[in-house]
Amino acid sequence: MSDINKKLDELGIVIPEPAPAVGSYLPVSAAGKMLFLSGQLPSREGKVLYTGKVPHDLTLDEARQAARLCLINALSQLQTKLGTLDTIESIVKVEVFVNSHTGFTDQAKVANGASDLLQEIFGDAGRHARTAVGVSELPLNAAVELAMIVMVK
Amino acid sequence: MSDINKKLDELGIVIPEPAPAVGSYLPVSAAGKMLFLSGQLPSREGKVLYTGKVPHDLTLDEARQAARLCLINALSQLQTKLGTLDTIESIVKVEVFVNSHTGFTDQAKVANGASDLLQEIFGDAGRHARTAVGVSELPLNAAVELAMIVMVK
Amino acid sequence: MSDINKKLDELGIVIPEPAPAVGSYLPVSAAGKMLFLSGQLPSREGKVLYTGKVPHDLTLDEARQAARLCLINALSQLQTKLGTLDTIESIVKVEVFVNSHTGFTDQAKVANGASDLLQEIFGDAGRHARTAVGVSELPLNAAVELAMIVMVK
Repeated sequence: MSDINKKLDELGIVIPEPAPAVGSYLPVSAAGKMLFLSGQLPSREGKVLYTGKVPHDLTLDEARQAARLCLINALSQLQTKLGTLDTIESIVKVEVFVNSHTGFTDQAKVANGASDLLQEIFGDAGRHARTAVGVSELPLNAAVELAMIVMVK
Repeated sequence: MSDINKKLDELGIVIPEPAPAVGSYLPVSAAGKMLFLSGQLPSREGKVLYTGKVPHDLTLDEARQAARLCLINALSQLQTKLGTLDTIESIVKVEVFVNSHTGFTDQAKVANGASDLLQEIFGDAGRHARTAVGVSELPLNAAVELAMIVMVK
Repeated sequence: MSDINKKLDELGIVIPEPAPAVGSYLPVSAAGKMLFLSGQLPSREGKVLYTGKVPHDLTLDEARQAARLCLINALSQLQTKLGTLDTIESIVKVEVFVNSHTGFTDQAKVANGASDLLQEIFGDAGRHARTAVGVSELPLNAAVELAMIVMVK
């Protein structure tokens, strides 16, 4: 078992099958050693599990779980692309868009659901630059959308 | 005629003159072989053609046309920068911001207006990573703003 | 005194101490010679100075000052990372998110508060690609959030 997979195992995280590519874009594209991930939604088996605006339709803690699930879906896409997550050199950038109800300003806490897990899995190599912003609507009414840039070895 | 220009010709697409740079930023900047495009609006000859919130002020199909027009303006900036679009190695990332009315969650369908055209023009090299999000307001009340990263040969 | 510090001095700009890293992400991450900055807020000494929605809670001119302050905070993070701002080869991309009240469409003018200053400090090397969009909410109710990509020598 690879180092990263051991870590995922310890954390009790199961990487799901990747969502099939829909339409004329890719889950992951490459520019040299940089990989760009498409926006991931908090979905499982094709169904968005966390929908609506924080904190009106789901709690802050649920939104944090949503960000975590987006990240797990991103790792699924990376594993499919790379064969193994051990090829990842570092996480460069994470972009988190939070479907925000009027007056909600804790986007950073939502984003921590993904950022904390990245550090748990990858250690220092998982520490990244980040933007977290509140948006008025997201595809399929998802509560969170997360995109990512990673470097490979 | 270049390969890409032949393709554009077949598709009946005329690349317009690029919009002049306004203010202290650039239409296109370079980082090695990666080019970063500034946010493009659905404008022609200095006038934004698609304004307001989807689907309140324009239909989904019009918004898709708006995304397509943003992309054509991006290609115009790239052609001016590069001399020829044949120098493009691949499209890395497309970011689509959709001016969304409350409850509109089809940002992905809007973004397809640009993504589909990229694949028609560039084939597999036109397939890219993508984010599509709904925002509450855009510059000049544009319905769509599109930014892009490309690799050159 | 370095070239850039001389310029900052002429402009009367004092680079503050960087805000300490909060949580499991980094103020600046590197991908080869590209540096990615996390979203910066218009804060000083840990307090967000410009809050709310433009132009309802602050004026356009104040929002422009907010964008300028985000940029100064970004330079503070870069100086801490690099030792000196003279190591910067060019500013590649600036992303500006403006906390926008209904009907506000001058996001580009707000973003100019940062873009103009970049050009004053770095000259042609300070000219960059840019996105400016309106969002419905930002962390800590900040009026502006700004992220950046730079190339180092």
